[in-house]
Amino acid sequence: MIRTIEWTDTGIVMLDQKRLPAEETYHTYTDYEGVAEAIRSMVIRGAPAIGVAAAMGLALGVKNAAIKTPPVSLEELDGKFDVICRVFAGTRPTAVNLFWAIDRMKAVYARVRSLGTETIRNALIEEALATYREDIEANRAIGRAGQELIPDGARVLTHCNAGALATAGYGTALGVIRAAVEAGKKISVFAYETRPWLQGARLTAWELAHDGIPVTVITDNMAGHFMKKGEIDCVIVGADRIAANGDVANKIGTYSVAVLANENRIPFYVAAPVSTLDRSIPDGDHIPIEERSPDEVRMIQGINITPQDIMVANPAFDVTPARYVGAIITERGVARAPYEESLRE
Amino acid sequence: MIRTIEWTDTGIVMLDQKRLPAEETYHTYTDYEGVAEAIRSMVIRGAPAIGVAAAMGLALGVKNAAIKTPPVSLEELDGKFDVICRVFAGTRPTAVNLFWAIDRMKAVYARVRSLGTETIRNALIEEALATYREDIEANRAIGRAGQELIPDGARVLTHCNAGALATAGYGTALGVIRAAVEAGKKISVFAYETRPWLQGARLTAWELAHDGIPVTVITDNMAGHFMKKGEIDCVIVGADRIAANGDVANKIGTYSVAVLANENRIPFYVAAPVSTLDRSIPDGDHIPIEERSPDEVRMIQGINITPQDIMVANPAFDVTPARYVGAIITERGVARAPYEESLRE
Repeated sequence: MIRTIEWTDTGIVMLDQKRLPAEETYHTYTDYEGVAEAIRSMVIRGAPAIGVAAAMGLALGVKNAAIKTPPVSLEELDGKFDVICRVFAGTRPTAVNLFWAIDRMKAVYARVRSLGTETIRNALIEEALATYREDIEANRAIGRAGQELIPDGARVLTHCNAGALATAGYGTALGVIRAAVEAGKKISVFAYETRPWLQGARLTAWELAHDGIPVTVITDNMAGHFMKKGEIDCVIVGADRIAANGDVANKIGTYSVAVLANENRIPFYVAAPVSTLDRSIPDGDHIPIEERSPDEVRMIQGINITPQDIMVANPAFDVTPARYVGAIITERGVARAPYEESLRE
Repeated sequence: MIRTIEWTDTGIVMLDQKRLPAEETYHTYTDYEGVAEAIRSMVIRGAPAIGVAAAMGLALGVKNAAIKTPPVSLEELDGKFDVICRVFAGTRPTAVNLFWAIDRMKAVYARVRSLGTETIRNALIEEALATYREDIEANRAIGRAGQELIPDGARVLTHCNAGALATAGYGTALGVIRAAVEAGKKISVFAYETRPWLQGARLTAWELAHDGIPVTVITDNMAGHFMKKGEIDCVIVGADRIAANGDVANKIGTYSVAVLANENRIPFYVAAPVSTLDRSIPDGDHIPIEERSPDEVRMIQGINITPQDIMVANPAFDVTPARYVGAIITERGVARAPYEESLRE
């Protein structure tokens, strides 16, 4: 069992994903600022995991504020909670699960506010633990629904890491693969390296090797070659935000893989919990795309690979138009085009 | 002026492309085995540069054999030359310029053989120097022909390094870009990083910065994103071997870029000297694809990025079907589909 994030009495414990696979290091965060920085610097990453981390971080911030001496007034706690929500909302812009988690915690806060600080604190902790449990349950349900789409013997390409490490546990895209394996199917995986941050080479490879699922790492320019040679049977990826029309924001490179899959008539699937849907956004053009530090491209593991100070671009996500998406697998079932209708249901 | 390779009285001097851009180191090779190893280990790379290096390496091997005391017999030199040709033919399988250069040197050897060892030696050196000079001239002619296809203000994507470093000088794809700049056009370049060996991030970025041409490095999963956003106007790449029907073998990832360019209605051009055409091969399915060491994928600059011993694939090239290729630019002009006919001319 991979322990991505855990709520404990001493703080929020996270497996440091910046150090995998070389080191398996756990950090314990005892204040919300540390949790926000862990999200920003990608100690924890993956849309569903970010949502859970934010919910726990909000609960931790309120817990710490509520136990102060002298006790905070309700008005002071309101102000504090508002600040904490803003700090988390500013960590990463693309994954909608972050905002979904904040809204969910805000709704609980509003519902129990009149019952006093201790009740607020307990309710927020309970809600954060619920997002954690529900995420694992959702992933298991996604796995059960999605594995039906994966044929026995399939060679599956996945991009980035949409696994246990990207969620509270089990994974979305990798959850589907795990469920297919649990159903007795023989599955092998191509893991796309996923520059600049190498989520595929570092995290997906580590996670699948951990579970004994055969995995081959390839660089981000090789999928087309293997698709054309008939060596990839389907593609399954996660999502950071899905618009009302079914356009999918996910790790940079997902759009390219989707185009290549379509060109080679290979099914392209997206696996994500309902919390990743953003029905307030009509299409992918409205999804904000995070631009990260140029040094992520200029350096690998702290070593310069480009000439110094060379210009680089580093958009962390791209948008795959719905027309390339064969199915969106959620915990409520498999949605197919037209997504405007199927996602509403 | 970038000095990729030079014939000198003391030996063959090469700029070590494994160490760029961190270090500008030159090695002098005084025996043919060293030159063959430099090709194999990619101290020098790029199809036209490999051809020139092989021609010079053959000349060096024969030169060294011919000056031995006691002098070699003609029959001994025949045997030696045969061995040297085999060693070079075994260095890298995909770039046809290697075999073209060996055949060219063999033809000279056969032509002057009856005139004795000293004449053979001088004729081979002269022929090697001719391949060097002709390659630069061919690149200049490719540049002149190709720059007509590049609009003023164009934002050009290139993959790998098809520049001065991949040739005797000036470059094929980058030669077209240089010629467009020399013609007064304002050009900016997106350089694809080109994992695993990072030819784009290391070599193309270094070379274009050296010439003051604006260059932005992006990872190998970003081109689709920028194409879809309308930020790339055309693609130009080199080639390692072009089949009679116009199918193009080039650095792994070229096929993916070609598919993405076609999907986004962006012209995709190939620039290569006539020595890259292999009319003996009907189509790309017959081009041998080199598989290189898994450690090139597992490690970057000597640092492990994947879990140890994880499976990886490392095909160094892929094949782009001719239907994706808008034009093939050679020193004899611009060929367009149907390539079967245009390349014959």
